[in-house]
Amino acid sequence: MAVVVPFDPVAEPSLETIISLVRDDMERANALILSRTGSDVTMIPEVATHLISSGGKRLRPMLTVATAILAGYRGEGHVKLAASVEFMHTATLLHDDVVDDSDMRRGKPAARMLWGNEASVLVGDFLLGQAFRMMIEVGDMRCLDILSTAAVVIAEGEVAQLAAAKNTSTSEDEYLAVIRGKTAELFAAACEVGPVLGKLTKAEQAACRSYGMNLGIAFQLIDDALDYGGQRAKLGKNVGDDFREGKITLPIVLAFRRGNEEERGFWTRCLQDGEIGEGDLERAIELLSRHNALADTVERARHYGAIAKDALGLFRDGPAKQALLDVVEFCVARAR
Amino acid sequence: MAVVVPFDPVAEPSLETIISLVRDDMERANALILSRTGSDVTMIPEVATHLISSGGKRLRPMLTVATAILAGYRGEGHVKLAASVEFMHTATLLHDDVVDDSDMRRGKPAARMLWGNEASVLVGDFLLGQAFRMMIEVGDMRCLDILSTAAVVIAEGEVAQLAAAKNTSTSEDEYLAVIRGKTAELFAAACEVGPVLGKLTKAEQAACRSYGMNLGIAFQLIDDALDYGGQRAKLGKNVGDDFREGKITLPIVLAFRRGNEEERGFWTRCLQDGEIGEGDLERAIELLSRHNALADTVERARHYGAIAKDALGLFRDGPAKQALLDVVEFCVARAR
Repeated sequence: MAVVVPFDPVAEPSLETIISLVRDDMERANALILSRTGSDVTMIPEVATHLISSGGKRLRPMLTVATAILAGYRGEGHVKLAASVEFMHTATLLHDDVVDDSDMRRGKPAARMLWGNEASVLVGDFLLGQAFRMMIEVGDMRCLDILSTAAVVIAEGEVAQLAAAKNTSTSEDEYLAVIRGKTAELFAAACEVGPVLGKLTKAEQAACRSYGMNLGIAFQLIDDALDYGGQRAKLGKNVGDDFREGKITLPIVLAFRRGNEEERGFWTRCLQDGEIGEGDLERAIELLSRHNALADTVERARHYGAIAKDALGLFRDGPAKQALLDVVEFCVARAR
Repeated sequence: MAVVVPFDPVAEPSLETIISLVRDDMERANALILSRTGSDVTMIPEVATHLISSGGKRLRPMLTVATAILAGYRGEGHVKLAASVEFMHTATLLHDDVVDDSDMRRGKPAARMLWGNEASVLVGDFLLGQAFRMMIEVGDMRCLDILSTAAVVIAEGEVAQLAAAKNTSTSEDEYLAVIRGKTAELFAAACEVGPVLGKLTKAEQAACRSYGMNLGIAFQLIDDALDYGGQRAKLGKNVGDDFREGKITLPIVLAFRRGNEEERGFWTRCLQDGEIGEGDLERAIELLSRHNALADTVERARHYGAIAKDALGLFRDGPAKQALLDVVEFCVARAR
């Protein structure tokens, strides 16, 4: 069941504007991404390339490049930082799949299913190390500070999620704190470093960071809604993965709070106790629908998307700004 | 069966000289180590402190402080870098225990046995991120380069070990490449950054790096020998852990090559196929003894220890140099 929310009724939102804006720089970033997975230890490029070439959108590095263009930056640093951001993201995915016991990632078997948990942990460490090396090569202390802080906050968010996992009475605020950490912080950092390199004012840097942070929250909320309503082909993973893993996401937080005692018992049995049987996923989707939980999750995402767009108000119109605005539309419209 | 190698027959080697040399600086480093494990996510300090307070010798950060003192450095950067080095090491241990399925670490249950693999992976990521933040605060680009490269090389060494694991025909050179990566690189980096901060000449920096690298190799070789001959109380883990995990270490490399067909069959069955039964560990220790494999491993360690000591020949005698020389003696003498 897809949730239909016409965000921009005029045109079908797409990533086309940002893709064409960043094409040249992303070609160099992609070349760097491939070359820095190289190692004499052949298992490293094998594992890394499996995930890196698996058709991710490379949204985060594109944001780094686009915000650097927005900032009028003329240099090569943003290309290395874009590659760093993608490596940080890839390292997180490798570790996440181990932590979540996931079988699939982007429609392919997760790396851990092919090479084992051990390789996923260690190649993640390798990529994180390479990410730091690239950002150190750029040599901007403020960018180093932003990205290393992001690495810490991401890990904190993941641990917080682990601690909150299976607790069906998680509040919306607690949930938001988790996704700020595990997802939005990297979006924020990805959007802040280009403007730092481009020597924008502090206010403009903060605007770009805010754009990234709120876009990241919107992105994750839509992901959470899609997990119960998206199509396998579109999402590259099975509907109900979060449900089977006992992940408490916003749709669950809303449905749990809006449900009666019997329904809360259902959520607790499935997510807290992990006792999931035949028909339970269908029942979950039915309850989410009854309480409007998916539509309201998308509504919350629209809210954060609107904040992201407003944050760019400081900048004058142009192709870079338009591309960044279109990314917000695209992300929210994914839930259609 | 302990291997007796009187390295310095005059005095019982100990870490006393380095401990008293670095006491004041290590107090500040230890305070930093504790404060930087802090997080609102309470699971993080719990997991981190479990391992950090478990009675590790803190040899690596002591080396950072001692080499900074050797370099005549007057500042506070070495304290933060020492804490960074310890965090990098702790992150590696957390990830290693997951990769190796270890139950025990330093005589206590491994963190993964108490909080699970998930927390061990993620808290390791957190500590690695905090390590980078601290080194970025110091702000020396060359030190950042050294330590971030070490992080990459360590991960590469771990993956190489994973790929070589259970291959009984691993050569001594291949094995050395693995331990250079997984152990010695961090010792080398730990010993190089203080001299960089202290603005020693390139030759002196290289000497300290070489000291650390060769000390690290010696340290690991002794560890490998102790795994078959140490006492539980001394090592904090069970004799034969490497054997049960199918780890190919130098004692095995030597015994395999020196053994006959029947013996090679034994090693292959136990380590490659993982079929270990009653009495096999005893047989393994007997074969190691017959082929002098433990004593020769210690002999190899003496060789690297001697290189480490010679590397310090550039420096004039004094308490810092003496402390560093005593560390070598101590490490090699652990196999007594």
